Amino acid sequence: MAGERVVEAMADIAPDLGRYIVEFGFGDVYCRPGLTLREREIATIAALTALGNAAPQLKVHIAAGLNVGLTRKEITETILQMALYAGFPAALNGMFAAKEVFAAHDAEGTVAAGGSMRRDTSN
Amino acid sequence: MAGERVVEAMADIAPDLGRYIVEFGFGDVYCRPGLTLREREIATIAALTALGNAAPQLKVHIAAGLNVGLTRKEITETILQMALYAGFPAALNGMFAAKEVFAAHDAEGTVAAGGSMRRDTSN
Amino acid sequence: MAGERVVEAMADIAPDLGRYIVEFGFGDVYCRPGLTLREREIATIAALTALGNAAPQLKVHIAAGLNVGLTRKEITETILQMALYAGFPAALNGMFAAKEVFAAHDAEGTVAAGGSMRRDTSN
Amino acid sequence: MAGERVVEAMADIAPDLGRYIVEFGFGDVYCRPGLTLREREIATIAALTALGNAAPQLKVHIAAGLNVGLTRKEITETILQMALYAGFPAALNGMFAAKEVFAAHDAEGTVAAGGSMRRDTSN
Amino acid sequence: MAGERVVEAMADIAPDLGRYIVEFGFGDVYCRPGLTLREREIATIAALTALGNAAPQLKVHIAAGLNVGLTRKEITETILQMALYAGFPAALNGMFAAKEVFAAHDAEGTVAAGGSMRRDTSN
Amino acid sequence: MAGERVVEAMADIAPDLGRYIVEFGFGDVYCRPGLTLREREIATIAALTALGNAAPQLKVHIAAGLNVGLTRKEITETILQMALYAGFPAALNGMFAAKEVFAAHDAEGTVAAGGSMRRDTSN
Repeated sequence: MAGERVVEAMADIAPDLGRYIVEFGFGDVYCRPGLTLREREIATIAALTALGNAAPQLKVHIAAGLNVGLTRKEITETILQMALYAGFPAALNGMFAAKEVFAAHDAEGTVAAGGSMRRDTSN
Repeated sequence: MAGERVVEAMADIAPDLGRYIVEFGFGDVYCRPGLTLREREIATIAALTALGNAAPQLKVHIAAGLNVGLTRKEITETILQMALYAGFPAALNGMFAAKEVFAAHDAEGTVAAGGSMRRDTSN
Repeated sequence: MAGERVVEAMADIAPDLGRYIVEFGFGDVYCRPGLTLREREIATIAALTALGNAAPQLKVHIAAGLNVGLTRKEITETILQMALYAGFPAALNGMFAAKEVFAAHDAEGTVAAGGSMRRDTSN
Repeated sequence: MAGERVVEAMADIAPDLGRYIVEFGFGDVYCRPGLTLREREIATIAALTALGNAAPQLKVHIAAGLNVGLTRKEITETILQMALYAGFPAALNGMFAAKEVFAAHDAEGTVAAGGSMRRDTSN
Repeated sequence: MAGERVVEAMADIAPDLGRYIVEFGFGDVYCRPGLTLREREIATIAALTALGNAAPQLKVHIAAGLNVGLTRKEITETILQMALYAGFPAALNGMFAAKEVFAAHDAEGTVAAGGSMRRDTSN
Repeated sequence: MAGERVVEAMADIAPDLGRYIVEFGFGDVYCRPGLTLREREIATIAALTALGNAAPQLKVHIAAGLNVGLTRKEITETILQMALYAGFPAALNGMFAAKEVFAAHDAEGTVAAGGSMRRDTSN
């Protein structure tokens, strides 16, 4: 899903970059044995929070984390821990990214359920 | 262990910094529920590899990762994945840090075992 | 004030992060002897300008700097100096953050004074 | 052009910063022999893409690159290559910056040509 | 002093870089009114600690800080505070840099005083 | 050459990382049309100087730059220009890396020429 959007976004400017991300990123690296997908998303959420200069990609991976079974709490714990290694601003901005993704997720859940509240209770 | 060394290193220059790291870092954050210690070390190794400007602390956490049960492969997979998010130099330098820690670990194992080879086979 | 807003913003997602920032950041670190609050805000404005990836927090600390008695000139001098250590883009973006905070400050001053112009003349 | 805008933007807050950028940046450094202007813009686009925390300045230099004769392809190749050294998020965000600049360039071209399509075909 | 060493180090490879640092850095920026030299060194020590990738220059500015009258405690407080904004590894590595500079300062003091202990007691 | 060394260095710890760098980095990216190898090395030297946390890789690419025909002056101009975008410490540390590579190059030249001075005069 995230891969499709990247391919689409790059189609008219740098299609090979989209292709590399899908083939090398998703194809080669994420499929490797040795870590579970949950662990891989923890690593990526940690790194993008710490780097602090890639908010769009952090949001993509917070959503991806939910998709591979991370709870909201596991995601916020990963982000919170980054305060130790990259400072409080990085952790705060990571948390704001998570708030946006969680809110979008709630909104989608509501729509998908035909208006009935189907809150994600994984937090 | 790592905490003790930090406290000692800071004792004559900034003892409170050592205390904050132990109390806030180890006491408050690492003891929180929500993530296992293995997952917390994956997050930290990922972040320090990606940031690329804290080699001594990365080595401390690679050793800490081994202590909480991460295999060498899980550690190298975490570092390798950072090539996607922080580039190949960051991943390479993370791997050089891991080589040093693994070699020191092997040397200690040899000494501890009275000279008989007791290789860590977790890789 | 800034502390209250952080606590509020984190209340529904990671209340402990808000608490840590207030307790550890404001409680432990900013209350330490050895530097005046003016000097502490100079240090923070310098660091956040140089890091260049935490605009919201930089704005909070530019406002905090005004509150603890830094003049606008002292703040812009601190930001300008970062051109030497982090390059011109970091200094420019820090200056844009200051422009926003100063403008908001002017607007508040105008409102507070019932419409009469009460410009901050500290620059 | 870019220089004029910087001088103007800094006029009411830090006029000397604008002056330093023009005198030191454009006056001293860009006029030096040893590299062509095309090569200097390649270097700057590469660096600002890799740093990933100065999107406004990256856009200024993508436009400057077009002005000194870089083709769109040369610009996107420079940005793509940064995936190797700063990771995919940095390259993606650099590419999004280029998309904006190219689109603005197309729009200006259309306006300048009185509504007739005058597409930049340098890509 | 620091300026002379930079000029010398760059003499055979990039003399203009040395000249720019002296003329622009020391000549233009540090001589500006608006901040004291003490405050300028606090800003620089904070920024270089937070950036975490310029240890040699951080050491130069810790020594410069001592020369313009900062006490050791003021320097270590500035570095400690960076834990909040750039994480504990950055603060720790800044503190290790300070330890080196303070030790060199003590050694020089001992030599200068003809072997009699003349400890800097500003801490 | 650089590729071979990376493959060798990673052979016992993460052979796939070495393979990815050669296949993806050198195979896919550097062979792309659109930029000359000289231009690609200018971009890489600029980026690694600006990032400031990958000295070993910067040295590899300064040497690679010489191999693809960049003069020493073109390399030092690229590094000097980074003072504008990443600050003077980054430029200085890039220049120290270049000094090391140029000195090693001179030493090799002397050895290869059987002891007769064969100085690189490209500067």
